[in-house]
Amino acid sequence: MIQARTVAALREATDRIRAEGETLAFVPTMGCLHAGHLALVERARTEADRVVVSVFVNPSQFAPGEDLAAYPRVEEADCAKLEAAGVDIVFLPTEDALYPAGDQTIVELSAIPNHLCGLTRPIHFRGVATVCAKLFGAVGPDVVVFGEKDFQQLAVIRRMVSDLLLPIQVVGVATVREPDGLALSSRNQYLSPDERERACSLHRALRDAAERVADGERDAQTIRQHMEATLTESGSILDYVAVVDPETLDPLDTVEAEARALVAVQFGAARLIDNIALRPPA
Amino acid sequence: MIQARTVAALREATDRIRAEGETLAFVPTMGCLHAGHLALVERARTEADRVVVSVFVNPSQFAPGEDLAAYPRVEEADCAKLEAAGVDIVFLPTEDALYPAGDQTIVELSAIPNHLCGLTRPIHFRGVATVCAKLFGAVGPDVVVFGEKDFQQLAVIRRMVSDLLLPIQVVGVATVREPDGLALSSRNQYLSPDERERACSLHRALRDAAERVADGERDAQTIRQHMEATLTESGSILDYVAVVDPETLDPLDTVEAEARALVAVQFGAARLIDNIALRPPA
Repeated sequence: MIQARTVAALREATDRIRAEGETLAFVPTMGCLHAGHLALVERARTEADRVVVSVFVNPSQFAPGEDLAAYPRVEEADCAKLEAAGVDIVFLPTEDALYPAGDQTIVELSAIPNHLCGLTRPIHFRGVATVCAKLFGAVGPDVVVFGEKDFQQLAVIRRMVSDLLLPIQVVGVATVREPDGLALSSRNQYLSPDERERACSLHRALRDAAERVADGERDAQTIRQHMEATLTESGSILDYVAVVDPETLDPLDTVEAEARALVAVQFGAARLIDNIALRPPA
Repeated sequence: MIQARTVAALREATDRIRAEGETLAFVPTMGCLHAGHLALVERARTEADRVVVSVFVNPSQFAPGEDLAAYPRVEEADCAKLEAAGVDIVFLPTEDALYPAGDQTIVELSAIPNHLCGLTRPIHFRGVATVCAKLFGAVGPDVVVFGEKDFQQLAVIRRMVSDLLLPIQVVGVATVREPDGLALSSRNQYLSPDERERACSLHRALRDAAERVADGERDAQTIRQHMEATLTESGSILDYVAVVDPETLDPLDTVEAEARALVAVQFGAARLIDNIALRPPA
């Protein structure tokens, strides 16, 4: 596995791959890798000849007061996992490599970020779109692989790639869960044992919503109220509980075609998010 | 010469070229081509194996009240000139091809546009950066060629390509001029015969500034005052007269290294811009 810390070192490796006519799949991460990330790598290996993974905790997607400093960084362990998973190149850029002196270019979406996590994290998706545009520029992938857990992020990336006419296929991968349904997340380690136990309420609320819709419920308010009750009973503080269009993330009154339910809650120090597809009966 | 009106048709042609291991140079234009554009094409032919030119009057870089509707469109004549100049592919996208339904991604710079033309045209460079990001995404060039006449645009593109880590070389080409020094521009056709005659004052003022600097003048205010006098005497209405750093476009008090002088004036219906390098004696 090649370790590249500069764009020049990365390009040297990717240029060689492209010169051999091979395709590249790319998985951007913030490190602290768990089985959810490794599922993305596994999928990437089926989508292209070679796999590039980046590990970079991107400052521009954290607001002051968020957990940028606390965000776990375990580079050696991450590289060992990626090597074992058959990754060809790991890109470990310094901040200067992605944000060179005088850097001033921002990539921003005007609608999708005005929902859900974008409301409590107003600069977050500008940071995500900008760093992903940079990483896509540096790597030049044929395919990029993102998890469905960060569903709004996936919607932002799909829209950005489409709007900027990038010759890149965007693949979303189903969320990997603990046996009790809790979605894997680097932020789960902020949970106390008691919070951890109660945190399975996110998936329980979402699965219940999906079952209601499959059974014919179409009223978004009713679906949301049931989810809110489940989450509140588990002792979490609600940020949002939403039923939305899966592409635009615009809120829905009625579920008439495939939709998405999304929740965000605070359990102690951990802000947890999760989501599920809502599929009405045919 | 291949004419492509959709991104899919363009990609089919560029994929074939890349599969043969050939390189691509790209010249984006708004059409109404003159010898200035053809100098860009000629330079593009020396920079890569194949040349792509786009012709697209980009609505997002015009504010309401600017000359979007009046901007000249002469597609057949443009294509004839490009074919004669040896262009391989002309990309003639519809507005829908570059701005698909639901389009919402903006590429924006935070500093360079806060100078010069950006002050009177506040959305202009956001439109330029966004459409160029899209065109670069669609074409996938190795080299892009821009004229130095739109010097602030060239600075924006250089910075955007650098910040987004795009594997693209940006080439600037010297301005092509009429015998009396007037820079070629599609907007010159808005000039009355009398205005046309007086419009050579832009280059005269700039050349005088360059001579003063070459002779040892370093005070930016003195240099600007001489340019202002020349432009005012010619009956134009000043927008700006500036002496700036050639990369950041930040205004200078003293010319200590290579700098740039830029002017923008109104002659009747025509807004004209021009610029020149200022090189102090070694």
